[in-house]
Amino acid sequence: AARDTGSPTLAVIPGDGIGPEVTAEALKVLEVASPVKFESTRYDLGAERYLATGEVLPDSVLAEIRGHDAILLGAVGGRPNDPNLPPGILERGLLLKLRFELDHYVNLRPSRLLPGSVSPLAGHVLDKGEIDFVVVREGTEGPYTGNGGALRVGTPAEVATEVSVNTAYGVERVVRDAFARAQKRPRKKLTLVHKTNVLTNAGSLWWRLFESVGAEHPDVTTDYIHIDAAMIFLATDPARFDVIVTDNLFGDIITDLAAAITGGIGLAASGNVNPDRTAPSMFEPVHGSAPDIAGQQKADPTAAILSAALLLDHLGHAEAAAAIEAAVLADLTERDPGTSRRTSEVGDAIAARL
Amino acid sequence: AARDTGSPTLAVIPGDGIGPEVTAEALKVLEVASPVKFESTRYDLGAERYLATGEVLPDSVLAEIRGHDAILLGAVGGRPNDPNLPPGILERGLLLKLRFELDHYVNLRPSRLLPGSVSPLAGHVLDKGEIDFVVVREGTEGPYTGNGGALRVGTPAEVATEVSVNTAYGVERVVRDAFARAQKRPRKKLTLVHKTNVLTNAGSLWWRLFESVGAEHPDVTTDYIHIDAAMIFLATDPARFDVIVTDNLFGDIITDLAAAITGGIGLAASGNVNPDRTAPSMFEPVHGSAPDIAGQQKADPTAAILSAALLLDHLGHAEAAAAIEAAVLADLTERDPGTSRRTSEVGDAIAARL
Ligand SMILES: CC(C)[C@H](C(=O)O)[C@@H](O)C(=O)O
Ligand SMILES: CC(C)[C@H](C(=O)O)[C@@H](O)C(=O)O
Repeated sequence: AARDTGSPTLAVIPGDGIGPEVTAEALKVLEVASPVKFESTRYDLGAERYLATGEVLPDSVLAEIRGHDAILLGAVGGRPNDPNLPPGILERGLLLKLRFELDHYVNLRPSRLLPGSVSPLAGHVLDKGEIDFVVVREGTEGPYTGNGGALRVGTPAEVATEVSVNTAYGVERVVRDAFARAQKRPRKKLTLVHKTNVLTNAGSLWWRLFESVGAEHPDVTTDYIHIDAAMIFLATDPARFDVIVTDNLFGDIITDLAAAITGGIGLAASGNVNPDRTAPSMFEPVHGSAPDIAGQQKADPTAAILSAALLLDHLGHAEAAAAIEAAVLADLTERDPGTSRRTSEVGDAIAARL
Repeated sequence: AARDTGSPTLAVIPGDGIGPEVTAEALKVLEVASPVKFESTRYDLGAERYLATGEVLPDSVLAEIRGHDAILLGAVGGRPNDPNLPPGILERGLLLKLRFELDHYVNLRPSRLLPGSVSPLAGHVLDKGEIDFVVVREGTEGPYTGNGGALRVGTPAEVATEVSVNTAYGVERVVRDAFARAQKRPRKKLTLVHKTNVLTNAGSLWWRLFESVGAEHPDVTTDYIHIDAAMIFLATDPARFDVIVTDNLFGDIITDLAAAITGGIGLAASGNVNPDRTAPSMFEPVHGSAPDIAGQQKADPTAAILSAALLLDHLGHAEAAAAIEAAVLADLTERDPGTSRRTSEVGDAIAARL
């Protein structure tokens, strides 16, 4: 796929449910905003392909995708409780496989309360300050590695384990990335979230590397809080956060709460970033495939469009990325909360502003 | 300690920081409300003892505590980042040791938005319905078992693991307890929270036992959501929950968020329950030892007082428990949000209503 035509190449994985609809709008906006023309290849992967063929991510497809400059993903996942689609098949076999194989060790999730969007938090909480933080979620370790197993399945003596694997190699690189990001922001503040008082082995590793890398960044203010206390702060004082660095599972949990308090999962973008650029990075909305509203042009494509902005930024087109963000902001500000627009109408409106 | 005088025996562990202050108020209220007179023994355990003697929970003390009818705990934990008190020493060695040794497999955490308390959620969320749910958190398994370890500590090749251990034995009993609790509530609804799409071994075990025990309780409505989606619902529609059953770590995270949205950790009570009564159950506020405000009579003892109510209920004194709850409710309703009362004044006010 990655032919050497000079154009950057994009692997597009629209996926399932609302994935194709929101991806179409992201591509529409990307086309208008990007200073370069992408050569896109579409890969049909997800529940539909699996149910039809039993294939999740053939090695040959993974090899092709690996040859691209970046990946844009919509959403992956079938109907809930589909007996033909056991939980984990697509998550482990496709989404996490891509993150792990392409070494997406920085799962980047900006969280901002954008103008015009409605937070579930009360005025007295929002008055404490602007919500504008970034979660740097580790993407290739923790309880997500697929380590563990089960014994005597289906009997009263069954034992099932899940192993969180943490390495100095893996923790240090994501902590370094987070410090670098914190350093570039006005507040220069980095909070480590973990559960060092219970997960003492992993917690100690994270804590020590956070301290030692921190010593090299004296201009960054640091802070540690347990994952449970983080819940309280996110609900009662989210303005206190600037950059958060955390493990794969805690990051999953924090970023959905962050999306909720900043106006919903329809707006939350993410990048699965390989900062060393040894493989393409992947950009996707935080939301799922929402099969219940699929094909009805009801989904909000904003998160997918903001993910395309993160993609452009990663490829060095910071201005174009900022232009998309500005267009989204303007759209959100002028959105009439009483009217619901079709998915394509939102894409059109944002594209028209560029 | 558990002499056969006919009086029920209570092991009291005031602990550190604000622990002794809030425990004193809980005992004050217990004394007034309880139809029976407890014979209490105080155990000095926690950061202070550890720092002075190196002792966390001597076997002989554990054996004594085990001989009681119930345990009332304040809070345990020293100053944050005290170099003489590595994270986990007290948590693993005292708090979790008690939960594990005394087989507290049901960690019960009621979450209600009580009148007069201030939620960080906006009116449009609170208007969706009353927040009144109970989290049944598994207390003896999951990532809390202390399984795992570390290799090549302090080198760039360090590997640290944390193993979540889940057994059919352990999952089935807590799921049964949760179904029984759901069945006794008007809405009869039970939600399983897990991450079955990533933690597939443990998730599958939890899911299968939830389904099979559920088949024996056709009158209970069941529901499953992933831990990340649970964050969104807790922030945007907490009224949807009735009873939640979940694993040890997810329960830790959910209940702090639940405490936050229902007006704060100063009100959240919990029971570490051994439903089989093979050992004493332990009751404690969800909050920590808050060393920064210790000894200043600033802490709100309400969570400790409500924990004492759970204790009475567990010992069969449902009426007395309800009376404490009613007194707390009345106190909260008539509390002047503009005035701050001393810890003992809150205890006095609640005791005076009984
Ligand atoms: C679908 C799932 C595997 C995934 C995750 O847990 O990482 C999703 O929740 C996310 O946050 O991207
Ligand atoms: C102090 C800590 C070990 C404990 C836990 O994680 O269970 C606390 O957070 C709680 O929720 O009771």
